[in-house]
Amino acid sequence: MAREDHINPSERSLAYSDAIFAIVATIMILPLSGQAVQGVAGSKDLLAGLLQIWFKLLIYALAFILVSSTWDTHTRLFRHIEKVNETIVLLNLGVLMVVTFLPFAFLMIAEYPREPVAISMFCGCIAVVGIFKAAIVWQVYNRDNLLKDEEAETGNLSSKRRRALLMVMVKPILAVIAALVSIGSIETAWAFLILMMVEPALRQIGEAVYHCVRGKTRYGLKVIRPSRLVSETAETSRLSCFSDGVYSIVATLIILDICVNNVPTAAHVQMHGSVVKALSQDAPVFLSYVGTFVTVCLLWYLHHTMFRHIRAQNSIVLTCNKMALLFAGYLPIVFKLTGQFGKEVGTGNSSLAVQVNSVVVFLASVWLLAMWITASCKKSETLHSSAHTTMANMFMVAHLCIYPVTSLVIFCLCFFVPINSDVINWVQIGMLGVFILLKLIRNLAQKRL
Amino acid sequence: MAREDHINPSERSLAYSDAIFAIVATIMILPLSGQAVQGVAGSKDLLAGLLQIWFKLLIYALAFILVSSTWDTHTRLFRHIEKVNETIVLLNLGVLMVVTFLPFAFLMIAEYPREPVAISMFCGCIAVVGIFKAAIVWQVYNRDNLLKDEEAETGNLSSKRRRALLMVMVKPILAVIAALVSIGSIETAWAFLILMMVEPALRQIGEAVYHCVRGKTRYGLKVIRPSRLVSETAETSRLSCFSDGVYSIVATLIILDICVNNVPTAAHVQMHGSVVKALSQDAPVFLSYVGTFVTVCLLWYLHHTMFRHIRAQNSIVLTCNKMALLFAGYLPIVFKLTGQFGKEVGTGNSSLAVQVNSVVVFLASVWLLAMWITASCKKSETLHSSAHTTMANMFMVAHLCIYPVTSLVIFCLCFFVPINSDVINWVQIGMLGVFILLKLIRNLAQKRL
Repeated sequence: MAREDHINPSERSLAYSDAIFAIVATIMILPLSGQAVQGVAGSKDLLAGLLQIWFKLLIYALAFILVSSTWDTHTRLFRHIEKVNETIVLLNLGVLMVVTFLPFAFLMIAEYPREPVAISMFCGCIAVVGIFKAAIVWQVYNRDNLLKDEEAETGNLSSKRRRALLMVMVKPILAVIAALVSIGSIETAWAFLILMMVEPALRQIGEAVYHCVRGKTRYGLKVIRPSRLVSETAETSRLSCFSDGVYSIVATLIILDICVNNVPTAAHVQMHGSVVKALSQDAPVFLSYVGTFVTVCLLWYLHHTMFRHIRAQNSIVLTCNKMALLFAGYLPIVFKLTGQFGKEVGTGNSSLAVQVNSVVVFLASVWLLAMWITASCKKSETLHSSAHTTMANMFMVAHLCIYPVTSLVIFCLCFFVPINSDVINWVQIGMLGVFILLKLIRNLAQKRL
Repeated sequence: MAREDHINPSERSLAYSDAIFAIVATIMILPLSGQAVQGVAGSKDLLAGLLQIWFKLLIYALAFILVSSTWDTHTRLFRHIEKVNETIVLLNLGVLMVVTFLPFAFLMIAEYPREPVAISMFCGCIAVVGIFKAAIVWQVYNRDNLLKDEEAETGNLSSKRRRALLMVMVKPILAVIAALVSIGSIETAWAFLILMMVEPALRQIGEAVYHCVRGKTRYGLKVIRPSRLVSETAETSRLSCFSDGVYSIVATLIILDICVNNVPTAAHVQMHGSVVKALSQDAPVFLSYVGTFVTVCLLWYLHHTMFRHIRAQNSIVLTCNKMALLFAGYLPIVFKLTGQFGKEVGTGNSSLAVQVNSVVVFLASVWLLAMWITASCKKSETLHSSAHTTMANMFMVAHLCIYPVTSLVIFCLCFFVPINSDVINWVQIGMLGVFILLKLIRNLAQKRL
């Protein structure tokens, strides 16, 4: 049994990591969809209720961005790694454990921004993640059998290792400084925290200056040119995995509430006379479950159809994807609120609920459209050859426009006609029909060509 | 653009399905880990508390088995499918939607076993899933470009289609009959439900009788021989995917509670004097979070190491895997209870909490050992050639024995010495060291060889 036997492809470790990242990124939405929404539903006025929980809604968004950028650096770290040994698998589990703790550390810092302990906790997480990552880099670049061939064979390995270590260690060092400083002055600690957030940009500028000083001005300027954002491409497999995780969690969130709250109790059954009547009281909840599930799954379907054509991602595609996932996370909440307030036609609540709903659906779908447009601007690099025809592009755009256009129309209609929440749910379920119709039209168009 | 363009590999659809199945299977544990455990923690006596929620604990197990066997038939359905077109993707989303609803339908039937509406709801789900699956079978066997080559090229396709449709439709038909009958007589409906559960065995016996009657006695007897359980093997990729999903959910469950309950409120901080002191009140919770995370991730690590050697699964491997995952789901709950009651050394609660903990850890790990033993009994069919050496086998067994042996020792120790919950958590965290030690020993042994 050679040592080689303990080395194996990195796929499964990465799939497990993606699953954990997806859960951690969306975990802050779970408490929101439960008690917080019940709180809003208890208040008479939807707007007042929303203002009550705006801070929590914001925290979810920020935590999502935080965790998904950590995921981002994780994918960048593992991009050149072909195989993993047991040490790397264990180190990676260490990274995951600390990442799982990030939402709590972030909540603490949001609640107590002036407490040294909250800042130290957050910085401690960043620092420990950095140390584990540095250990992974060290392992990988010291064993040439773990790297991908193209990385192992080109250039000087030890200078590559230095670069990779530098990239991984800047943030942790800043975090340690921030934690130490926070005991003396909170303001300075926050300055370091902000420095940590803009660190990638700073590192790029530093690199450019370094090259310019050494006389390689042209190379130096190339580093900071914005076109780098679209020119650096990478594989899309981990992006698909992470997105699958997020969409599947969002799609099943509502059923959790249904299991907890909507099984009629014995008292409930007695009050209404029969189980059927007790269940029918909750009919709007079930309808909004179907509505959310169909919407989330069709968004996933769009994502899936799109990534059949997309071969490689660049930074802008990645950002659009994150935004699309972020807003998809709000869907279960707005659907619940629509179900709760959308019945009160006549009061302002009903229109507002429906409008909030369409805004979120719009935002969750329009980023997918933006992603497709970005990708098709750089056709040759990002798309498979099958998607280069005008017709493929046209049908893809038509698919991607369905949701943004419908939600815009509903949003505008609300100013003129009172719209019931049931209508919204049926419109969402009816979307399935629109997709099937579009498919039939395409098949017909192909036959005639 | 040919029609071929709308056909693509099935991997991503299946990964999304696996994620949804994993979430739905473990979803019933979420409400348990929150309010139910708080209820138990509120009662003075752990045993009384556990007896209070035993029904919910059982429901989780049954729902898990139900959903994971649905996942099982789903993998069986897609085993021969190489590629999917858009229709199949949409039909599969339909299957997933109904599967998501299964836990609720199951809860209803468990709460109201004598209500026709509960039985009809459950049977309705089974029937709709069956219809969607039949539509998928129809699509696939009518288009030869979707099937895997070995399925498309051998034998008569239309007889294969008939067989596949029969396999998919028996359960739905029984479900429809049960639903219709439930209006008249609940008992008969339950008889049909039980018939539905043992249907695979019945179908096999039916097949055997059919072959025997037609004179092919030897072939008929072969169908019902128990060795079929270990001789029919299949790929393990979807099993890994599903397991990754379940382990990642279980590992992150506790952090959700921490985010909801353990951010100290302003009143809390005032009461204890400072944020640090308020946080240190919750130290046992944080410790049990680390303990659970390490345990679940090391179990995943064992699973991962094992499936590096396992090439193909058979029915017994599959069953062992399900049981291991099922008991892993209880881990967050027992760790929380241990944290709550393990402090009360001297009362019966402490020992009981620690013992319950070790029993669950034992059950979650011993099934992995059983899986390895089953797989290594049929080495040539299920293992990669690298795992055929005695040493590889020995170290794998050593790894797999760590958890069962430790938890047995702790269980027995409890009868003689009072053990604190902190000890348990530190033992679990210390397991990491044991794994690293074993790795070093193995490296040393390899060098000497």
